[in-house]
Amino acid sequence: MTIDSKLKDLGITLPEPPRPVATYDPAARSGNLLFISGQLPLVEGRLQKVGKLGSQFTLEEGVEAARRATLNALSVAKQQLGSLDKVSRVVRLGVHVASASGFTDQSRVANGASELLISVFGDSGRHARLALGAAELPLGAPVEIELILEVE
Amino acid sequence: MTIDSKLKDLGITLPEPPRPVATYDPAARSGNLLFISGQLPLVEGRLQKVGKLGSQFTLEEGVEAARRATLNALSVAKQQLGSLDKVSRVVRLGVHVASASGFTDQSRVANGASELLISVFGDSGRHARLALGAAELPLGAPVEIELILEVE
Amino acid sequence: MTIDSKLKDLGITLPEPPRPVATYDPAARSGNLLFISGQLPLVEGRLQKVGKLGSQFTLEEGVEAARRATLNALSVAKQQLGSLDKVSRVVRLGVHVASASGFTDQSRVANGASELLISVFGDSGRHARLALGAAELPLGAPVEIELILEVE
Repeated sequence: MTIDSKLKDLGITLPEPPRPVATYDPAARSGNLLFISGQLPLVEGRLQKVGKLGSQFTLEEGVEAARRATLNALSVAKQQLGSLDKVSRVVRLGVHVASASGFTDQSRVANGASELLISVFGDSGRHARLALGAAELPLGAPVEIELILEVE
Repeated sequence: MTIDSKLKDLGITLPEPPRPVATYDPAARSGNLLFISGQLPLVEGRLQKVGKLGSQFTLEEGVEAARRATLNALSVAKQQLGSLDKVSRVVRLGVHVASASGFTDQSRVANGASELLISVFGDSGRHARLALGAAELPLGAPVEIELILEVE
Repeated sequence: MTIDSKLKDLGITLPEPPRPVATYDPAARSGNLLFISGQLPLVEGRLQKVGKLGSQFTLEEGVEAARRATLNALSVAKQQLGSLDKVSRVVRLGVHVASASGFTDQSRVANGASELLISVFGDSGRHARLALGAAELPLGAPVEIELILEVE
């Protein structure tokens, strides 16, 4: 079963990859590792809401933002590789959660990203993970995720 | 001399590796690199104290927490590899320190992790390092560490 | 054209690499990847100013600090490799910006690092990037950068 079929089964349509930026690339490959640049939960190029977990964002909204940022990362990966079938495994996921003082549920927010990766890639989607609370994130985003993928 | 003998000489007993978590793995390997997931200073599955450096934690407590989180990382590595003798070198250490406003001694906290790695692995334990101050960490932990190991 | 000539054309003199530190190394290599330790905008071993973006530092000062920290990273790379001509590409840049509450321009600060890398290495300087807002950084630095380089 191809990843495209799997995405269809899951009812997932990948967004357009975020626009290229002047001063860095959406991803960089070295050997079999593809490093995806930090992704925000942009929808059609902009954040639908800004702020932090523990103040403006509920846990549920944070989980959804982590999922959305991960979809953007997968969209970048597909653009780079031609097909997500070339992903042999997800290696490392970093989830950075904009955290108001006292918010310590970064792991549950990160599950929004982890669960998506596993639902799409199955066992190959299992990964090492880092979940952290950031003071602020670019544009006021609630979540930023980064991925290292092993690719064919 | 094996790493197990070295640990014994140092009076170090590795803890049980933290319990497997549903949505991510304790470590992921690609080629000769083993990425260890972010580790907290858990003792028997829980934090002994929560808070930040610069408020609830003294520097000495922070150093000890960094050391403890690193022991957990080594326990994960041993579980994955069968033996720590398969670690050919420590490549990168990330130390994330929950920091109250004005705390800027992240490097000294990180030394708790660095010194342990060098005492256990000798020259192979020397590593590139990143020390940062996080706004918050999962569960209210004072320190979270991550490791990339080069393995046989 | 060598990178040394390119640096000369750009009017850039690399600083001395930061002094070796007891408990970790300025860089660690595994295979073709060179991991550079987190670099601060030190000038002759010390910070010229401490504080955060959004309070003590203007955006322009932050951009300059990111550029300076990147020069230190390149100096470390040159020391490790003998020559920067051995850099085949810049793979990943992490830019950590000490951020006062409400500062969300981490990406523009990070451009100070990205633009330097591209001006020095050309297309090989293009990279995956992560820009984050840290609560605090070592010594009160406004910016800390880390690099992964692919090397010959």
